[in-house]
Amino acid sequence: MAHPAILDRYRREVDKELRAVLDRQGPPVLYQMARYHLGWEDLEGRPAEYFGGKALRSTLCLLSCEAVGGDWRRALPVAAALELVHNFSLVHDDIQDRDRERRHQPTVWAVWGEGQAINAGDALLSLAHIAVLRLTQEDLPAATAVEATRILDERTVEMVEGQVMDLSFELQLNVDLAEYLEMIDKKTGALFDCSLRLGALVGGDDLEQVEALGRCCRLLGLAFQIRDDMLGIWGVEDQTGKPLAADIRRRKKSLPVVYALSRAEGAVLQDMRRIYSREEAGDEDVSLMLRYLDDMRAQAYCQRLAKGVQTAALAELDRLNLSSQAAEELRGAAVFLLERDY
Amino acid sequence: MAHPAILDRYRREVDKELRAVLDRQGPPVLYQMARYHLGWEDLEGRPAEYFGGKALRSTLCLLSCEAVGGDWRRALPVAAALELVHNFSLVHDDIQDRDRERRHQPTVWAVWGEGQAINAGDALLSLAHIAVLRLTQEDLPAATAVEATRILDERTVEMVEGQVMDLSFELQLNVDLAEYLEMIDKKTGALFDCSLRLGALVGGDDLEQVEALGRCCRLLGLAFQIRDDMLGIWGVEDQTGKPLAADIRRRKKSLPVVYALSRAEGAVLQDMRRIYSREEAGDEDVSLMLRYLDDMRAQAYCQRLAKGVQTAALAELDRLNLSSQAAEELRGAAVFLLERDY
Repeated sequence: MAHPAILDRYRREVDKELRAVLDRQGPPVLYQMARYHLGWEDLEGRPAEYFGGKALRSTLCLLSCEAVGGDWRRALPVAAALELVHNFSLVHDDIQDRDRERRHQPTVWAVWGEGQAINAGDALLSLAHIAVLRLTQEDLPAATAVEATRILDERTVEMVEGQVMDLSFELQLNVDLAEYLEMIDKKTGALFDCSLRLGALVGGDDLEQVEALGRCCRLLGLAFQIRDDMLGIWGVEDQTGKPLAADIRRRKKSLPVVYALSRAEGAVLQDMRRIYSREEAGDEDVSLMLRYLDDMRAQAYCQRLAKGVQTAALAELDRLNLSSQAAEELRGAAVFLLERDY
Repeated sequence: MAHPAILDRYRREVDKELRAVLDRQGPPVLYQMARYHLGWEDLEGRPAEYFGGKALRSTLCLLSCEAVGGDWRRALPVAAALELVHNFSLVHDDIQDRDRERRHQPTVWAVWGEGQAINAGDALLSLAHIAVLRLTQEDLPAATAVEATRILDERTVEMVEGQVMDLSFELQLNVDLAEYLEMIDKKTGALFDCSLRLGALVGGDDLEQVEALGRCCRLLGLAFQIRDDMLGIWGVEDQTGKPLAADIRRRKKSLPVVYALSRAEGAVLQDMRRIYSREEAGDEDVSLMLRYLDDMRAQAYCQRLAKGVQTAALAELDRLNLSSQAAEELRGAAVFLLERDY
């Protein structure tokens, strides 16, 4: 699936807003880590080709603002905040998962060490709040800034709760399928929820709309994460930036594996457990695991589940009867989330 | 110096406010880590004797609220937020400094691992913001909540900047004395500044007073940190909860050492550098280092500096001409900060 143009529409303006938030005096190494992680600079501090993320959360937020009839420019502070919270979580995730590469580049902790990477994440999270408060420069009432902060913080806590669950799963041999879905609902769904909710809050003041868009995007986040889990196993390296079957190699209990473990029996179950009790799976074990997943049709299960969740999300969107061009584009973005191959 | 009663006056109410903020559904292990770190529970989840910190920041905040003529109960949300930000930084600091014990108890990362400890800190930081927003339940205008959030975030970023500088110093052989003082101004001063500032903001609306109290407490923070650096070398284990000369043992470049390194010459300088280029200093090196510090009267230098900073802080307080009982107690607390031996 081609890269949808919508993902680039607001990029330059979000970037500008982020740069304004990050333009601070302070120890150079801190802001260097931030600029590097955001893809603005290479390791020598030279301006880099933008290799940053897909800017999904800010795009969804600004689309949501437009979809309810608002001026997306006024939502730039919350869009920037969403990118900062997302990137704070990536910097800390990389430490926790011992990932040395992201988007074909060494991760922050791999370059500057764990201690400084913890600081970089902490700073990005605090700066996200400073970003939100820029709403007050947009002539919005203080009560809206308070509400936006509250929405962002509640969802951030939820995201951290999801991360706590994810790490606990590493120590468990069996992960319950329902618990796994609760985990990704928190870890990924919460910030997606936050994206549409914040855009709608700034763009209009219809609280029911805000609520419904939040629910819709939480489901999209779930579908997005399921797709991510699939790409972590069956994705193509050139597109995802991750080695083939990367998640099996490092024995990540992502959805396909949790599903397969919940279905397997006898000798197959024992063998899967053997593979997943090692530090790292070798080539032979990876092939074996891929065969087990095939046998249990894990890919089809994930695809079906993601499709179902996406359908529920789109139904939520339809019920709102938004007739704007932006609402149509929001639909398009929702479809992309599930069909992307990177 | 005896434990001043003032440090216990608000403790029960701050505790109650903190418990209200932390009373959430979510993965039990997350809130267990938080309760354990705050000293409410032991490792088995049994209610513990409160062994938490000195609650200095919340006490200063509530005193400040009273000193400007406000009702301290209305400032409980910001007092709780200050404790949460302070404790987030402790949880992450312990990981960064590889400290396995705090207050005679194993640290969060030593019990639950680094990954989960990173999450615990992240959650405490996010919960601090949720705590601040409880101001809106106190019938304060939304604009005050926005201003309180802004003050807290600006100071939190500054605190992280200080932590970044502190970690960078570990890699440097020479640390400039002025740079060191800038680091502790950020790392410790910023949150102290925040404490009086937030209390005064909620208690009154005299912006000049808020500003002056902030400046005063930033200086107190500096004096506090200098005292902390002294206790890290010359403190008595029973009182500080840290082994004797702990900071030398792990080659921490705290003020006495930075000062001594800036003054030493020839063979002594070379020997100090030798000691500080090892992973950990043995007993003999610790004794040597203590002698060098003595020879250069490092302790007297630190004491003089702290005294000077404290005098400036008290002068700032005097200029405000606050005549309340609380203002007098604030003075008392300021004196304690410098003379404490734990």
